[in-house]
Amino acid sequence: MTLAHPRVLTGDRPTGRFHLGHYFGTLQNRVRLQSEGAELFVVIADYQVLTDRDVAERLAEYVEELVLDYLAIGIDPERAVIFTHSAVPGLNQLLLPFLSLISASELHRNPTVKDEIAHSQQAAVSGLMLTYPVHQAADILFCKPGLVPVGQDQLPHLEATRTIARRFNARYAPPGSPVFPEPQALLSAAPRLLGTDGGKMSKSRDNAVTLAATEDETAQLLRGAKTDADRRISYDPVGRPEVSSLLLLGALCQGRDPQSLAEEIGDGGAARLKSTVTDAVNDYFRPIRARRAELATDRGHLRAVLTRGNARANEIADRTLAQVLEVMGMRY
Amino acid sequence: MTLAHPRVLTGDRPTGRFHLGHYFGTLQNRVRLQSEGAELFVVIADYQVLTDRDVAERLAEYVEELVLDYLAIGIDPERAVIFTHSAVPGLNQLLLPFLSLISASELHRNPTVKDEIAHSQQAAVSGLMLTYPVHQAADILFCKPGLVPVGQDQLPHLEATRTIARRFNARYAPPGSPVFPEPQALLSAAPRLLGTDGGKMSKSRDNAVTLAATEDETAQLLRGAKTDADRRISYDPVGRPEVSSLLLLGALCQGRDPQSLAEEIGDGGAARLKSTVTDAVNDYFRPIRARRAELATDRGHLRAVLTRGNARANEIADRTLAQVLEVMGMRY
Repeated sequence: MTLAHPRVLTGDRPTGRFHLGHYFGTLQNRVRLQSEGAELFVVIADYQVLTDRDVAERLAEYVEELVLDYLAIGIDPERAVIFTHSAVPGLNQLLLPFLSLISASELHRNPTVKDEIAHSQQAAVSGLMLTYPVHQAADILFCKPGLVPVGQDQLPHLEATRTIARRFNARYAPPGSPVFPEPQALLSAAPRLLGTDGGKMSKSRDNAVTLAATEDETAQLLRGAKTDADRRISYDPVGRPEVSSLLLLGALCQGRDPQSLAEEIGDGGAARLKSTVTDAVNDYFRPIRARRAELATDRGHLRAVLTRGNARANEIADRTLAQVLEVMGMRY
Repeated sequence: MTLAHPRVLTGDRPTGRFHLGHYFGTLQNRVRLQSEGAELFVVIADYQVLTDRDVAERLAEYVEELVLDYLAIGIDPERAVIFTHSAVPGLNQLLLPFLSLISASELHRNPTVKDEIAHSQQAAVSGLMLTYPVHQAADILFCKPGLVPVGQDQLPHLEATRTIARRFNARYAPPGSPVFPEPQALLSAAPRLLGTDGGKMSKSRDNAVTLAATEDETAQLLRGAKTDADRRISYDPVGRPEVSSLLLLGALCQGRDPQSLAEEIGDGGAARLKSTVTDAVNDYFRPIRARRAELATDRGHLRAVLTRGNARANEIADRTLAQVLEVMGMRY
């Protein structure tokens, strides 16, 4: 893959440790993009967890865990810009012009916002949740990336970002000199990994192996995974979702296809399946986990990575904001 | 009047020159507060005019006019902080935590927003207009003022600000150490001055004498003012609104009550009324206009006032933002 524009924006909300679903869904892809020459930006979206009080109370811990995971999987802090958006006022200020370019009804219509509202079980929808896609546009556009890797459910957000970029350019930029790019979506074919209970993999359901888990914890969690009674192991995501998800996980770790793994296990039953997958996971993540453990002993280094990333993000945001103020006629 | 807390926040949207309604409605009061010891903050709310394209295109000019008017009427730039909020990123970032403390339906319910939406005749309500009271809370709270002079129609906004301050303190501040004050409204009894057409005084209706008008322009505009056919001049705001508004204007300029001015004019009719009021206005504003003309010759000074005000506002905003990030646990 060649990147026309090598700047790539990715990010996460700091809600806890990453699990294997995150890794194979998005994190691994970032390291690949980096190795292909992308200049990686990683925003830790710490304002976007405020609606969850339990998370808000452990924010510093969760942010550190994220940085630890990024470095452990191989994101290179010398080349990537890892930052928390709360530390970048110039980025956050972009919210104001951007809010002027989107209508209240467009905010209410955003399907992902609707969905999150439905899932949040909050009595009231906060103004922060309603304006979330506009703040995300600021997270993205401040560094003018060419590409944004997204899952299917994030497409409407990126479309909102592209709309805002287009409207800003049309209204304020000199003809032929757009201020913002319209970043392309890089749709990743995220594997459908289920949690060990057969449901959606999720920290809050205790059904996910984290990157940071020990080998014993991994084995224990996978031993308890839901399967079925058929001793003959086969890859059939529709008919046998739980067994197939375990096969897929093992296959991802071994860099092979799940059918061949199924054949190898044959009629070894769930026990054989689980021990095979456990070994595959532990083998694959052993170096990552070792690096993580080592990094965890040097908190000063983690803080320095974030401080440097924040400084670099501020430099870029200040430059973008200055340009935005300039074209808007707000230099006095 | 003694001020328990001497910091006072005031402000304006840069939509053009001030007229006499602004002067007697709010500007004069600011100079009085200053002379009584208040530390005056004056925010020029330049983001809040973006929905009006015509204004947005002349922003720099309008901002300069405002600064010119402030200094001409006697706001002391050595003591007051005059700033544009677009130049203060730390202030604007407060929008994010504040948006999390207010619900989408509260935003929609704000009566002033409803009213402005009805008046704006825009096809669509922008996200900026919808979140306007929250941004105004940031404009106010960043400098932790004790008092905010407001008109009746601004009371719901200030109530939103007080609500946000209260909720922020309750959720994030250590017990007994609130981060934000709940600023008090200073309700000014703004005189009901009508435009020369008998309608609401408004720049866009060309029915208002500006501070910057010449004496001839003032005379001409007042000569064309709507009155009635009764030669006997009397102060009767309900029965004779146009005549009474002129009397009120003259009386405000002469520091007397409108009844006594009516008696003095007696049955001199509209012509005598208008020439009396014209003289009163021109006499009162002569020194202000002279100062304005002098200040207008030194654009460098005006820019320096704004640069210094912005620097001071940034200092304060950065300090407040640091405190906000601290109590929210967003220091890593």
